[in-house]
Amino acid sequence: MRKSNYIDQLANILSKLPSIGPRSARRIVLHLLQEREGLFTPIMGLMETVNNNIQTCRKCGNFDVSDPCHICSDPKREEETICVVESVADIWAMERGHFFKGRYFVLGGLLSAIEGTTPEKLGFQKLYDQLKDSSVKEVILGLSATVEGQTTCHYLIDFIKPLNVRATVLAQGMPIGGELDYMDDGTIMAALRARKELA
Amino acid sequence: MRKSNYIDQLANILSKLPSIGPRSARRIVLHLLQEREGLFTPIMGLMETVNNNIQTCRKCGNFDVSDPCHICSDPKREEETICVVESVADIWAMERGHFFKGRYFVLGGLLSAIEGTTPEKLGFQKLYDQLKDSSVKEVILGLSATVEGQTTCHYLIDFIKPLNVRATVLAQGMPIGGELDYMDDGTIMAALRARKELA
Repeated sequence: MRKSNYIDQLANILSKLPSIGPRSARRIVLHLLQEREGLFTPIMGLMETVNNNIQTCRKCGNFDVSDPCHICSDPKREEETICVVESVADIWAMERGHFFKGRYFVLGGLLSAIEGTTPEKLGFQKLYDQLKDSSVKEVILGLSATVEGQTTCHYLIDFIKPLNVRATVLAQGMPIGGELDYMDDGTIMAALRARKELA
Repeated sequence: MRKSNYIDQLANILSKLPSIGPRSARRIVLHLLQEREGLFTPIMGLMETVNNNIQTCRKCGNFDVSDPCHICSDPKREEETICVVESVADIWAMERGHFFKGRYFVLGGLLSAIEGTTPEKLGFQKLYDQLKDSSVKEVILGLSATVEGQTTCHYLIDFIKPLNVRATVLAQGMPIGGELDYMDDGTIMAALRARKELA
């Protein structure tokens, strides 16, 4: 028997979290035990609070203290525009900028033959049903500029075609602050193709 | 208001843990919310168990379900040999190999002028008091091969000199499996100085 079994068990399960390996999991448990008052107890309290209070919004899939979430229930948000994203993290990313005034829909993933993500596992049908009886006029596809993201885009456009809603995708090009020298070929090509007339 | 305040608070405090930055903290919270049954609840349960059951051994400073810990209270462990280490993680590292049969003493850090770690903040006096009335014959200094580790070694050797206990340090040299080409100069020099006659 080496160190206490409980410590091993906690380190084991923590190492299943994203960006935590077995080594950092052990360091984290050790750190928690060394800082009981300052970290361990507050973290446990906050986890409890989050677990008890945070729900999944049945409409868009966001996490919030209320269901529907504060975005879905905000009357100031445009009901005509809905942005389809892969996960809740993408809502957070969009909201950081405070520029998008529409609502969201979390798809729950991207189509991927390799990972076995078939259309049935994602929220296509739910989105379709929501769009059918709504005042939504534009669906913005805010998906990643990866192969999976683009595949999902094309599938989604076909899927909602019968509804006659306008579908748009995020522009591709140079990121703000990006230097041409460091861009990959795909980005340069996309930026060149989508070049705009100087006003 | 962006995402729920509770989520922000939990991500904030998690980012204070070692090897977790603000970005991974957000990803972890998201992952926990997505895997409530499989991860969130079990992690909370185990944290509770660890916090309630794990104590600091008053003798050596190890973390264990009992105080004194299972190493200090194990009658099969040699009482004559004590290995002084920086933190509990070092006990775990030593114990992984199952080759050390003595006991431990956690110093709680290393002397460092830059970080303001003075001798009073470490366990020197506690170690001295323990050694004074004990059957310990050899103190192994299992400290890091860094400047701080070596400073602490020298200080500790002076500190326990009046007790007339044998003090040894871990050997320095090539790590097993290490390739000469990739070794730093310091390691090569240490290995060369401590070279041994082939039997």
